[in-house]
Amino acid sequence: MKIMRSVEQLREALSGQQSIGFVPTMGFLHEGHASLLEQARAENDIVVLSIFVNPTQFGPNEDLDRYPRDEIRDQQLAQSAGVDYLFYPTNEVMYPLDMARVTVRSGDDVLCGASRPGHFDGVLTVVSKLFNIVQPTRAYFGLKDAQQLALIEGYVADYFVPVEIKRCPIIREADGLAKSSRNVYLSDREREQAPGIQQALVEAKQALDQGQPLDTVLEKTRTLLQFEGTTIDYVEAVAYPTLGPIDATTETILLAVAVQFESARLIDNLLYTRGA
Amino acid sequence: MKIMRSVEQLREALSGQQSIGFVPTMGFLHEGHASLLEQARAENDIVVLSIFVNPTQFGPNEDLDRYPRDEIRDQQLAQSAGVDYLFYPTNEVMYPLDMARVTVRSGDDVLCGASRPGHFDGVLTVVSKLFNIVQPTRAYFGLKDAQQLALIEGYVADYFVPVEIKRCPIIREADGLAKSSRNVYLSDREREQAPGIQQALVEAKQALDQGQPLDTVLEKTRTLLQFEGTTIDYVEAVAYPTLGPIDATTETILLAVAVQFESARLIDNLLYTRGA
Repeated sequence: MKIMRSVEQLREALSGQQSIGFVPTMGFLHEGHASLLEQARAENDIVVLSIFVNPTQFGPNEDLDRYPRDEIRDQQLAQSAGVDYLFYPTNEVMYPLDMARVTVRSGDDVLCGASRPGHFDGVLTVVSKLFNIVQPTRAYFGLKDAQQLALIEGYVADYFVPVEIKRCPIIREADGLAKSSRNVYLSDREREQAPGIQQALVEAKQALDQGQPLDTVLEKTRTLLQFEGTTIDYVEAVAYPTLGPIDATTETILLAVAVQFESARLIDNLLYTRGA
Repeated sequence: MKIMRSVEQLREALSGQQSIGFVPTMGFLHEGHASLLEQARAENDIVVLSIFVNPTQFGPNEDLDRYPRDEIRDQQLAQSAGVDYLFYPTNEVMYPLDMARVTVRSGDDVLCGASRPGHFDGVLTVVSKLFNIVQPTRAYFGLKDAQQLALIEGYVADYFVPVEIKRCPIIREADGLAKSSRNVYLSDREREQAPGIQQALVEAKQALDQGQPLDTVLEKTRTLLQFEGTTIDYVEAVAYPTLGPIDATTETILLAVAVQFESARLIDNLLYTRGA
């Protein structure tokens, strides 16, 4: 595995490659990232991992400064997962002029977009730059960030970006908690509460399977997510991947939740296909 | 020359080509466009011309609905200039979702950007889409739209777009009026006045050569542009291509003007290299 810090260096290495699988991340890698890398490894000649804590997707009161970092462990995981090139840009590399941003016009008024104004503008800005740098054949994103994935798919379609976006499943701890770099923020007590998020989603799925009305299911999910010392950021259902309102024609529902713990905001979701 | 109306059709034709020269336009082609196409023809294996009157770069009170069109004459000119593929997308083709726009953060608060809010957001949005569709080796833009060219160069650098941007000279009528699709709007009397724009710029260049202070030159240019029945939109000087303020280190000055005639707003400019 080679570590690259400049665009020119990476482009030279990638020039003429047949197929490139790309996994963009913010580092502090866990098994969720590893599963993306493994799929990229299986499907491409070359695997590129980028690690960049992108400042433009953090709000002014968010955790940019304390976002967890562990370069050595990340490099070990990347090496084990068969990464060929690890790209570590700095802010100066990624934002040479910062003279334009990608601005989302629809699909960011719900879920995390409503809670985090400008977050997805920052995500699409950096992802579009990374796509231009790496020019991947396929790029891999986890369904844990379901809204992010839908917006990236939308951007790729809307802007004709020549890349195939791969949706990858949520990877969980043994007790069901969705893997996240931010889980490290949790106190012991919070870590015990946190698997309750997925339990609420499992119950939601059962209720939907039983034909209960969506509003009832959402209300029940809200009740189940009332952990002591936490607040619910949102419990919402939207059509997927349009992120628009659910109507009679909606095939796939995204039921997504965000819970604010004292020092971490955790998200999880359920993709539910009607009649399946 | 083949006419293409779908992205898929064009991409298939361009797949595997060695070098692609691209000239994006809004049609109603004139000798200015022809000169871009000739340069593209000389420097590339394949020449692609796009004709698309992009709605997102027009303001609500601008001339989108009456922008001049002449498909037959355009096709004749394109054919003569050696175009291989003429791409004619519709709004529906170019904006399949319209879920995100490119938004300019710096460089659009002067000149045409100040007069036409959102204009360059629309320009960069459509140009970035066209670049992704065509994936050109080189793209050709005229210096008549000097601010547009600088912002496209900035965007390409900031977003790592793998294309070489070629700056091409302003092409003029015999009497000095810069070629423009919008010249057709001019009344006979306005058409007689309009060459005065370039005459004012020629005098500005002479005054700068003589070492006159920039402010004096700008004031004199404003006086020269007082044509009967017209108003000056702007007479401004900025550093080029940064579009920022001029200081002691500025090597190249863009002296740009916009004059509002009754039914046409005409622009022209002078790139002046200090000490040259």
